Amino acid sequence: MNDFTYLSPTRLIVGRQAENQAGTWIKEYGGSKVLVHHDSGFMKQNGFIDRVIEQLKADGLSVVELGGVVPNPHLELVQEGIALCKKEEVDFLLAIGGGSVIDSTKAIAMGLQYEGNVWDFFIEKDGEPLNVPAKSTPFGVILTIAATGSECSNSCVITKADENLKRFCDNDVNRARFAIEDPELTMSLPPFQTACGVVDIMSHSMERYFTPEKENMVLTDYLCEAIFHTCMECGRILRDDPNNYEARANIMVASSLSHNGLTGMGRTGDWASHYIEHELSGEYFSVTHGAGLAVLTPAWMRYVYKENQTLFLKWATRVMGVSMDYEKPERTILEAIDRLETFYKEMGMPTRLSELPGVENLDEAVMEKMAKRVRVMHPDGSVGGFKRLYTEDIINIFRMAM
Amino acid sequence: MNDFTYLSPTRLIVGRQAENQAGTWIKEYGGSKVLVHHDSGFMKQNGFIDRVIEQLKADGLSVVELGGVVPNPHLELVQEGIALCKKEEVDFLLAIGGGSVIDSTKAIAMGLQYEGNVWDFFIEKDGEPLNVPAKSTPFGVILTIAATGSECSNSCVITKADENLKRFCDNDVNRARFAIEDPELTMSLPPFQTACGVVDIMSHSMERYFTPEKENMVLTDYLCEAIFHTCMECGRILRDDPNNYEARANIMVASSLSHNGLTGMGRTGDWASHYIEHELSGEYFSVTHGAGLAVLTPAWMRYVYKENQTLFLKWATRVMGVSMDYEKPERTILEAIDRLETFYKEMGMPTRLSELPGVENLDEAVMEKMAKRVRVMHPDGSVGGFKRLYTEDIINIFRMAM
Repeated sequence: MNDFTYLSPTRLIVGRQAENQAGTWIKEYGGSKVLVHHDSGFMKQNGFIDRVIEQLKADGLSVVELGGVVPNPHLELVQEGIALCKKEEVDFLLAIGGGSVIDSTKAIAMGLQYEGNVWDFFIEKDGEPLNVPAKSTPFGVILTIAATGSECSNSCVITKADENLKRFCDNDVNRARFAIEDPELTMSLPPFQTACGVVDIMSHSMERYFTPEKENMVLTDYLCEAIFHTCMECGRILRDDPNNYEARANIMVASSLSHNGLTGMGRTGDWASHYIEHELSGEYFSVTHGAGLAVLTPAWMRYVYKENQTLFLKWATRVMGVSMDYEKPERTILEAIDRLETFYKEMGMPTRLSELPGVENLDEAVMEKMAKRVRVMHPDGSVGGFKRLYTEDIINIFRMAM
Repeated sequence: MNDFTYLSPTRLIVGRQAENQAGTWIKEYGGSKVLVHHDSGFMKQNGFIDRVIEQLKADGLSVVELGGVVPNPHLELVQEGIALCKKEEVDFLLAIGGGSVIDSTKAIAMGLQYEGNVWDFFIEKDGEPLNVPAKSTPFGVILTIAATGSECSNSCVITKADENLKRFCDNDVNRARFAIEDPELTMSLPPFQTACGVVDIMSHSMERYFTPEKENMVLTDYLCEAIFHTCMECGRILRDDPNNYEARANIMVASSLSHNGLTGMGRTGDWASHYIEHELSGEYFSVTHGAGLAVLTPAWMRYVYKENQTLFLKWATRVMGVSMDYEKPERTILEAIDRLETFYKEMGMPTRLSELPGVENLDEAVMEKMAKRVRVMHPDGSVGGFKRLYTEDIINIFRMAM
């Protein structure tokens, strides 16, 4: 186990109609003038956001509203939000939505406490961020999509649309004060969005499970596996019964635990699949992050598993339920990867790049362009912890995924 | 899943020599004059506590020292600590030790922010605490024994020695600001203490696993099972190799996660074994909490399993590795309980009341006295969530455990 520090201070408030508690908690954390940030989508159209705002006002809070967040949220709206909040003297931010809305909120919250351009926190110079946020305006979340785990993570991903640049800023100032999770809110999601969420949640613990440590990582292995089992069992239930409350609730809480740092304690993390996917959905805005991961993860697995077959065998037998092939252990692993791909297909996910909208005709030139743009993790220009991947490796993974 | 709120704000700082960071974190949380609280035991005698104090002073902090905490920590020393801290104007408390030292620290911290007698928080009137703490002086922990999980729990257990009363106060003011966990510090523990810790850690998640909910509790079942697997795998390693760093580290982190609320999210909790054991070690100060649990838990299981055989079958097959007996499922459960008892024996634990020091000649009169004294959980005078137990049930469990 590597030395580590773990902090997950976000208060989880889980249950039916939990959103009615938002005003109470905002006041508990010192808020009085609140930005309600959202994507102007279904939750606005069905009146949910207006009902929350009415309740906040009834609780004695002032409210400013800013909608319009798009998937892979744009820097432009973040800048607009910062200007609006400064003008309106907002002292608390409430994200109502999924990862895109939460990340847009986090970026606004950082920008409010910074004199310079908030994009400084997202771009690098000589392999280091141009600047590191020192603080952030407090914010909370009403979660409406279980997927990114941004409600409990320290991560914020923003896209600069004019350059097709999707970049992140990981810092503890990005921790929400509270995350309100009403599982019923996720019941109206299209099956595709639910499935993308399940893939993303699994992926956050896969990135922490397939790590370079060679010793036996007992506790965190089991914690990651708890996420995998939960996602697969409850994902299958939701495919057949989208209104199953227990399955919705389990997936929602799994979303938060899979990306708050818990499953990665004392481990290095891989993150290659995520970094590569960020370039894919940064290049093709029509690609949903979870769908991109469903395509790239099995390809990544087939490309890297030889680095640590012991760990892949543990996953294959304990998680994917494959019987150990003692004569040819490799078969056990390949069967498990096939089963993962089958699970993704059963959930309605694409598992080839060519099945993704807009990516049908991905050619080698674009593969190379994206591969070269993947944010590097190591001074040698590579990405990934489990196996270090260079540009040519990434192109190979794209090829395997076509 | 029941509605729930989850908050675990304690910062975990894990690794070799992590104790050297104590001063930095105390200052981060606003401390300047620190009470160092301990048990005057091995860690004092081997110079560790003096080294920590020197480091705190080198970090610019003032230090007051109070040792002398005993197992099942006494109210008397808590009162002494409160008086000392008031006189010395202490603004931060640092517990160096295990559960007893941490709980004594928590009680002092509550008493410092309360005009009345701190015992008010521990005693009941008409089934409610006489008073509820509103705040507490901030405190941190350097953990030297992995067992009670008090470093991350909201719980505090104090004994009023003159009345043999062991009572608790569960409140979020009892959350430590940080818990420093250096696995090497636990290597010098006697095997018996290590084993008692393993039993206690397992027990904290068993109390959250065997709960009255009838639906399938997917995620938290797996999280509890992660704790069980980790304790059994790493416990066996430590029995043969007490200096195994990885096993020490896994047990230490499991201690914190097993009692910070994580494994009980959305569940009711049972706690009968704990409540009954508190009377046992409250009556016999020579009984270590973990050893008492090793005796009482299997007896409790055999007494209650028929309430929800499905859940016991899940535990028997997924955790204890028993093959399902489809003809007579009950056999699967009884075999699993036998295996748990065997594991405890392998760890050097007693598994009968008569093997506990001082309890050899426990008679029916004392059983009845203890059973009647068990703190009730429900208005009908019973204790336990999985199965409600009345005085006669508790006496039966004592009898089965003799």
